[in-house]
Amino acid sequence: MAPEVETQSNDETFVVSELQDAWHILSTAERVEGFRLLPRGDAEELFFTLTARDQYELITGLPVGERRSWLRLLPPDDAADVMQEAPDDERGGLMALLDDQTRKEVTALLAYAEDDAGGLMNPRYVRVRPDMTVDEAISYLRKQARERIETLAYAYVCDAQQKLLGVVSFRDLFAAQQGKLVRDVMKTDLITVLDTDDQEAVSRLFADHDFVAVPVVDAQGRMKGIVTIDDIVEVVQEEATEDAQKFGGMEALDAPYLDVSIPQMLKKRGGWLSALFLGEMLTATAMAYFEHELQRAIVLSLFIPLIISSGGNSGSQASTLIVRALAVGDVKLRDWFRVMRRELVVGTLLGVLLGIIGMLRILVWPTRNKLYGEHYLLISFTVAFSLVGVVLFGSLAGSMLPFILRKLRLDPASASAPFVATLVDVTGLIIYFTAASMFLRGVLL
Amino acid sequence: MAPEVETQSNDETFVVSELQDAWHILSTAERVEGFRLLPRGDAEELFFTLTARDQYELITGLPVGERRSWLRLLPPDDAADVMQEAPDDERGGLMALLDDQTRKEVTALLAYAEDDAGGLMNPRYVRVRPDMTVDEAISYLRKQARERIETLAYAYVCDAQQKLLGVVSFRDLFAAQQGKLVRDVMKTDLITVLDTDDQEAVSRLFADHDFVAVPVVDAQGRMKGIVTIDDIVEVVQEEATEDAQKFGGMEALDAPYLDVSIPQMLKKRGGWLSALFLGEMLTATAMAYFEHELQRAIVLSLFIPLIISSGGNSGSQASTLIVRALAVGDVKLRDWFRVMRRELVVGTLLGVLLGIIGMLRILVWPTRNKLYGEHYLLISFTVAFSLVGVVLFGSLAGSMLPFILRKLRLDPASASAPFVATLVDVTGLIIYFTAASMFLRGVLL
Repeated sequence: MAPEVETQSNDETFVVSELQDAWHILSTAERVEGFRLLPRGDAEELFFTLTARDQYELITGLPVGERRSWLRLLPPDDAADVMQEAPDDERGGLMALLDDQTRKEVTALLAYAEDDAGGLMNPRYVRVRPDMTVDEAISYLRKQARERIETLAYAYVCDAQQKLLGVVSFRDLFAAQQGKLVRDVMKTDLITVLDTDDQEAVSRLFADHDFVAVPVVDAQGRMKGIVTIDDIVEVVQEEATEDAQKFGGMEALDAPYLDVSIPQMLKKRGGWLSALFLGEMLTATAMAYFEHELQRAIVLSLFIPLIISSGGNSGSQASTLIVRALAVGDVKLRDWFRVMRRELVVGTLLGVLLGIIGMLRILVWPTRNKLYGEHYLLISFTVAFSLVGVVLFGSLAGSMLPFILRKLRLDPASASAPFVATLVDVTGLIIYFTAASMFLRGVLL
Repeated sequence: MAPEVETQSNDETFVVSELQDAWHILSTAERVEGFRLLPRGDAEELFFTLTARDQYELITGLPVGERRSWLRLLPPDDAADVMQEAPDDERGGLMALLDDQTRKEVTALLAYAEDDAGGLMNPRYVRVRPDMTVDEAISYLRKQARERIETLAYAYVCDAQQKLLGVVSFRDLFAAQQGKLVRDVMKTDLITVLDTDDQEAVSRLFADHDFVAVPVVDAQGRMKGIVTIDDIVEVVQEEATEDAQKFGGMEALDAPYLDVSIPQMLKKRGGWLSALFLGEMLTATAMAYFEHELQRAIVLSLFIPLIISSGGNSGSQASTLIVRALAVGDVKLRDWFRVMRRELVVGTLLGVLLGIIGMLRILVWPTRNKLYGEHYLLISFTVAFSLVGVVLFGSLAGSMLPFILRKLRLDPASASAPFVATLVDVTGLIIYFTAASMFLRGVLL
């Protein structure tokens, strides 16, 4: 964790905030230059707000002699993030700048995947023994605070083998009578996470419960570190951004918009865009299949965009609801049937709503005879009936696709608005032309 | 804040988790019944994980005599959230169940809007005086811990008028030499939020900095409470869900998917769906305008879904990027021109990519002569040219619309995938038919 309160003296704030604002348009060399002009306090303030990538670039941009003090400013979990950014041949040089203990801790952290609880945790936490008195524990705590502990919220009670026996919140420790033993005030039924748990699961735990830190243990129940809530806020933001981008029909960027290079941007967007385009080509095939009907009743073509987009829109609504509900845990995989029943009702009613609007639009239009021909009434039936079918299909496809993806162990957020729209477009055309042949056979077709 | 460590004894876990899993399919009466069957410890565990709405329904579902102890379990900020859920005529009765001090605090909190920092804050924090010694402060802290403080991370140094003078983290307080005065170890350059600040701004502050609590002051600089990071995790999740739902083309639900009634669901989805439908009707008007061209070259209609959906997809990508970048602060309003320049480049290149794929598709298709007629080459030019135009327009419209909405003080997240798609559909048709008349005039048209 960074310092808990930022210093912000009035005369220099101007310079810091200016550098901060211009940050993403500056080259690394310019950033380093600006950074070195700041007073140390301001520079530290800025340093802690940077991403690990920027911290890495800044540190390696500084003269060799200045690097050590910046790297040593970071707690082991953040230092490990910086090391992750370094290519293999540079990492050794940076690791050598750390003090021995931190280097050992960082090495252990680097063994974990970045997205695991182990990659997120801080190996420094407050340890007490079960047979200390409350008073002993508090003064022991004062000693540890002087050394290397960043987060003071809970003390973790471990045995000699580092096995986690219990937790005592500082609040309870402080409120307890002085003579009591730690084992008498500690809680023993704990919520812990495994060092190999995924960070998304960890963040859901924080969202469901109101704690500020959770202990990380290995498969043998040995205490490895703590994940603190401040790291989780970033995780939650990041995961929401990733989900939003996937939902918008592209790969997650993994970096701020303005920091992504044009070729990178093309790669992340072009892939899905091409895939969707190839899928959408089926509409041309479907249309060609109905070319005969189109030729006879060109009026049918007028409503094609209206109908397929209504299916896409209702599908986008349904999939956004379910993707998000799955992400925050409001809906579980086993709820799929309840969701389907709901969407069956909601989709039908929404379809009827649009169908009525569509029909009215055709029937009350002053030039309906000229625009749509003498059979405008039958055409309005065709449009209304298709809208019910398309909106219903959109709602069902949009709501079920995320479940199918989750079941296949893929990310439900890939059930993006464009993906669902593409799926629905082809089906929408088939529904529309089927309805047309029902209502217009022998009249126009 | 809820208790910092959850108790979870093995024999009863089964029942709690069962009730928790079934929660959203149970009626209020069934919830109350199940809840009352739980041992007190487990019931408390469950109670703290509930939303304010569920807590309210549970409390009012309990016999009158049992309500007080549950309501009093809540810290003032959470109690205020429960009161928000109560209709005006019930609120007085519930307020009467609180102890005097909490009632005063809750009344003060209710004066704030729910989404303000004031509505989010906890009025209970650790207060110390600047001229206490570190030792005095620590033992004063132990006394306060026994009383009513939930969050122990910082002590706030206030003068007699409650004006905030400085902050000292417990870590620094613990690490300081015993004889020092609080004023010597406190930090005086503070980051504070105003009680009237929006919760989204507060959550951005937490995401940018690594603190666990931030002091809330009024316009006169008087300390009113603290916002703690655990409340922010929920805010970040909620805001991300709201944004996602708006982006999916609907009103935010404000409740878990399965808890929203069908009429509510219809209202939240039907409104936007109808509005988009009315907008999309312009496509029928545009198509009617080009009916003459369509009649002459029915082959043109085959590519309409393909072309307009490509515009919609690229628009969805661009708007999702910018909506999210604005929400997390990666991009500011003043960056609009830089974004436009980028999207101009990216949109053109993506358009060229799709144009090439589209052209190839037409040219290499074995039955191209039969399907598209003898002028298939010219048609492939028309399609490719239109794709460049449509994808470029989609990228520009999708990226600029969120800026325009923000500028108009509307929520950028309303630049939803369906909204952008609708906007692009009409333009896409115009681009397509213009391209057609360029390439096919005198040949097919």
